[in-house]
Amino acid sequence: MTERVTANLFRTRLDEVAAATETTLDTLLSPLVRPGEIERPARLLEAMRYSSLGGGKRLRPFLVVESARLFGAEGEGVLRAAAALEMVHCYSLVHDDLPAMDDDDLRRGRPTAHKAFDEASAILAGDGLLTYAFDVLADGATHKDATVRADLVLGLARAAGLGGMVGGQALDLEAEKATAPHQPQAIMTLQAMKTGALLLYAVEAGARIGGADADQRAALVKYGRALGACFQVADDILDAEGDEAALGKRAGKDAGRNKATLVSALGLDAARERRDMLAIDAIEALEEGGFGEKAAVLAEAARFTAARRS
Amino acid sequence: MTERVTANLFRTRLDEVAAATETTLDTLLSPLVRPGEIERPARLLEAMRYSSLGGGKRLRPFLVVESARLFGAEGEGVLRAAAALEMVHCYSLVHDDLPAMDDDDLRRGRPTAHKAFDEASAILAGDGLLTYAFDVLADGATHKDATVRADLVLGLARAAGLGGMVGGQALDLEAEKATAPHQPQAIMTLQAMKTGALLLYAVEAGARIGGADADQRAALVKYGRALGACFQVADDILDAEGDEAALGKRAGKDAGRNKATLVSALGLDAARERRDMLAIDAIEALEEGGFGEKAAVLAEAARFTAARRS
Repeated sequence: MTERVTANLFRTRLDEVAAATETTLDTLLSPLVRPGEIERPARLLEAMRYSSLGGGKRLRPFLVVESARLFGAEGEGVLRAAAALEMVHCYSLVHDDLPAMDDDDLRRGRPTAHKAFDEASAILAGDGLLTYAFDVLADGATHKDATVRADLVLGLARAAGLGGMVGGQALDLEAEKATAPHQPQAIMTLQAMKTGALLLYAVEAGARIGGADADQRAALVKYGRALGACFQVADDILDAEGDEAALGKRAGKDAGRNKATLVSALGLDAARERRDMLAIDAIEALEEGGFGEKAAVLAEAARFTAARRS
Repeated sequence: MTERVTANLFRTRLDEVAAATETTLDTLLSPLVRPGEIERPARLLEAMRYSSLGGGKRLRPFLVVESARLFGAEGEGVLRAAAALEMVHCYSLVHDDLPAMDDDDLRRGRPTAHKAFDEASAILAGDGLLTYAFDVLADGATHKDATVRADLVLGLARAAGLGGMVGGQALDLEAEKATAPHQPQAIMTLQAMKTGALLLYAVEAGARIGGADADQRAALVKYGRALGACFQVADDILDAEGDEAALGKRAGKDAGRNKATLVSALGLDAARERRDMLAIDAIEALEEGGFGEKAAVLAEAARFTAARRS
């Protein structure tokens, strides 16, 4: 496939998965009460919908869907797993934006949840989304094999928990208060936890649902790690050079806050070089996995991650 | 068994389960990194330990353990499920105590997590505990059958989510702002969600692990519902009449805040009557389940719930 055709296919798939994720989230976050629930309070549901619907590229769902597709797996179960992961991502944004954390007023060009509702609602909406993600994964509608469901839950909990995303956010807040310069290795660990863990989980979930063998799984893990690291350094670069309008959030805020970023630790040029090397690593991992043309869209995702401007 | 002997046995079992839960939580919340985790940040781990260790009667773990014991199930797996549920309970206390929520400075006679650490750490410690609960349940060490593990996850997510505990807290905060008097039925729904759902889950989890049949499960569900309702009305009564020293938290705060309680809706006498009736309902449910003498400790838990002074 020519590069142009692959790039177009990637854009099409990204849009398709975003639309399907939106539909799945909309259905899951309907007022319909499920067995074991008592009532879905309207305002809380509204805050959860506000925090998860109508925004974002849905990169994580895309990675779940495209990784599963490598093995011919598709349909409702895959989309449910993708939506569950997106709920965890959205909850993390809601909590990270809180006044006690990053104190952000804007997210994707809209008021953050605690601004649109109130702080208590934002905390509870985040708690509700995180909890619901595990509900969705454990439900028989996601996969007929309970072993797969339990594995999906365990993997997400580890990726999102104290040894992953939540731990990464804790380290990030500590780094902000630090007076000594941030060491590159510490920043990479922090980013692997805060951002990388969920991106890695996305491809692992796809591999698990698709029934990847050990070699295929190892290749996807390598891809997911490189992609996650690439994504975060690209984010740091965008923040350093970006403009507020394109990002829909305050730009340049990292430097003003002593945020631990690879741009501050390595400099802009070295950070760009690292970003591009990581995209190449990700693409090579797919080649090692022997997925051939089937992985063209995932390879394009790595190129897109390195080249994105917002 | 005489009443005195049963009461003593109950106290002994409650203490035993509390000690075993403490040990299990301590092990789970060690610095040891599990597969799929990257690092356990020291301060976050400390905040999670502070929020979950060293306090409380551990009534929920007790209910898990004693319900499972009805069917001869005991050991590490049961304790892990009990500890997971307690993590969810503890996370809910940490988030409920936040300035944006109930704004409490004291919990069990100690500074609340956001006072002992800071608000961001308290939010993240809560998030970490909630996430970890699902990790523990989904892990093969909790039960060898993945279907049971997936069911335990699904049940906890429904009980703790927007249609259960989190939804109940949202309704509770709304009720505080309401100007119209609180209707008893609305308060009962709110309490069934906020407090009842996790207590009910406790006995359901024990039944699931123990392999209860449909009739036994139905009886335990009836017991769990009555016990949960009894627990909450007893709590309302204690708050209305309690003194600060005995509770380790500010007493009388419900009335000062327009909290939706059954004491304010029914009056103290009717609330006491309801509390005692619910304890009887719970005990009768155990008799209907045909558990005989094996359920004496659970029956005593219902008496204890109605009679407790702190």
